[in-house]
Amino acid sequence: MLDTDYIPTLSDMVEARERVAPHIHRTPVLTSSFINELVGAELFFKCENLQKAGAFKARGASNAVFGLSDAQAAKGVATHSSGNHGTCLSYAAGRRGIPCTVVMPRTAPQAKKDAVRGYGGRVVECEPSTSSREAVFAEVVAETGAEFVHPYNDWRVIAGQATCSAELIEQVQGLNAVVAPIGGGGMVSGTCLTLSNLAPSVKVFAAEPLNADDAARSFRAGHIIADDAPETVADGLKVPLKELTWHFVRNHVTDILTATEDEIVDAMKLIWKRMKIVMEPSSAVPLATIIKNRDIFAGQRVGIIITGGNVDLDKLPWN
Amino acid sequence: MLDTDYIPTLSDMVEARERVAPHIHRTPVLTSSFINELVGAELFFKCENLQKAGAFKARGASNAVFGLSDAQAAKGVATHSSGNHGTCLSYAAGRRGIPCTVVMPRTAPQAKKDAVRGYGGRVVECEPSTSSREAVFAEVVAETGAEFVHPYNDWRVIAGQATCSAELIEQVQGLNAVVAPIGGGGMVSGTCLTLSNLAPSVKVFAAEPLNADDAARSFRAGHIIADDAPETVADGLKVPLKELTWHFVRNHVTDILTATEDEIVDAMKLIWKRMKIVMEPSSAVPLATIIKNRDIFAGQRVGIIITGGNVDLDKLPWN
Repeated sequence: MLDTDYIPTLSDMVEARERVAPHIHRTPVLTSSFINELVGAELFFKCENLQKAGAFKARGASNAVFGLSDAQAAKGVATHSSGNHGTCLSYAAGRRGIPCTVVMPRTAPQAKKDAVRGYGGRVVECEPSTSSREAVFAEVVAETGAEFVHPYNDWRVIAGQATCSAELIEQVQGLNAVVAPIGGGGMVSGTCLTLSNLAPSVKVFAAEPLNADDAARSFRAGHIIADDAPETVADGLKVPLKELTWHFVRNHVTDILTATEDEIVDAMKLIWKRMKIVMEPSSAVPLATIIKNRDIFAGQRVGIIITGGNVDLDKLPWN
Repeated sequence: MLDTDYIPTLSDMVEARERVAPHIHRTPVLTSSFINELVGAELFFKCENLQKAGAFKARGASNAVFGLSDAQAAKGVATHSSGNHGTCLSYAAGRRGIPCTVVMPRTAPQAKKDAVRGYGGRVVECEPSTSSREAVFAEVVAETGAEFVHPYNDWRVIAGQATCSAELIEQVQGLNAVVAPIGGGGMVSGTCLTLSNLAPSVKVFAAEPLNADDAARSFRAGHIIADDAPETVADGLKVPLKELTWHFVRNHVTDILTATEDEIVDAMKLIWKRMKIVMEPSSAVPLATIIKNRDIFAGQRVGIIITGGNVDLDKLPWN
């Protein structure tokens, strides 16, 4: 039984790194002279959009899946997610050859269902409500005995995401700060875990859509605030903080900066145009916040986590 | 005065490599398990869309610009190109701090004019006809004494483009073939120059839109055939071969494969979706030809040159 209160440590990250190495890419770090001039800082983009299954979540999912005992693994894994975590859990389960079930609202985009199935996972549909999702998910677990892997409030997942910034500080020397998007806080927590131990002088900033600024308000209030169904183009960032991620955010994050929808879309288009990479709106939030907070980052060396690249090419937000 | 008949050699490539090193990226090589399974071969994408100024042409342009004597450099460089060569020549000239003039039809996209100006170059407009272009270009050269740098029929440019495959064979061992798009033939010629000398067992294939298949027809006919204003989504590939590039194509290319417009757009979208990179329609032609010629490449290790990433994000060909 998973200890849901356990706070992962540096050695969990180190073990995760060894465990996931065969299943993930060491993603490249890209730069843009044009964007550097624009913001007056040196930016280093850690390209998790080029990660296996198209998102950093392949790290946490792989760590959870490959850390299971053979007995538990045989029963498979399950989650509820209509985003990258579902796809990445299916990817990791497929690598281990074990069953994976993802509970998803029947209204979720077809592409997301296809992505889970493309890696061999099973999609079980629920109604688009929390009560239906919880009921259907409980049934799935009762039937299969599958291990629940939460998208972020899970120490194995956080330890997996933490491997990303371990690579980043090897790839780029002398960083002053890292800016990562924040939704549920899995990537931010992993970043805090690694940097607070291995590079404590590097500040961690979280970047959030103003339209879904529950983490920023939680940070100011000193306790978790959850929004009811926020609407933002950065659809990976709508979910609220949970206990484990709140622990890292509260203790290690320097500040949470926000950006408007227009600022996010402008930053996204700028990255596509200048850096020639396909990435999600969520991944553009850090640059959007840096552009409007030039004074904070002036002259600094700043890492940015490009969290994922799974975007609907037929529905780009500037069209 | 440039010797327009001179065929560049391996030592020209080696000198070019040293000359351009401070001004270009050693671009990464990306792979996709999904696409490998789809085509039944191992593909290695050399990402010149991530090159400075967004295209491999930064290599040839930089070699030409930084090879000039100080006296000639002071008078600047000039070209006629509404594509990546104009932008890249402006980039290289900007790096050296010398004038650059690009003659372009007044009907060329605003974005292309802005790109030249963005690197400090001057745009001089002509009417959209060959006679007007030649007349205006002659005026520019007469006024400025600028050195003409042809987009591809120029040994300095070919030697510069040749540095790309020199990197590729260091980055990927044991290649069986390289496939590059062909328009005027600058990249293909550079690829032939390097591989025929340094890795003669690696076959060079050229990939061309069926709608602009003048190079394929030239290859079969044994002499240069130039089409009059072909129409293709791969707008970088409309120009005909010239003497220098014909030399390399005739002597070192194994075959020229073609793809239809739909096949090109499908391959482009597949690369965007699976590899998360922004690249031009021209860059998708190699994959399009590999998908329809699986038998030729089955089980092989194949390099693909992703030539550029300067695409209009507001007018994607699948929208």
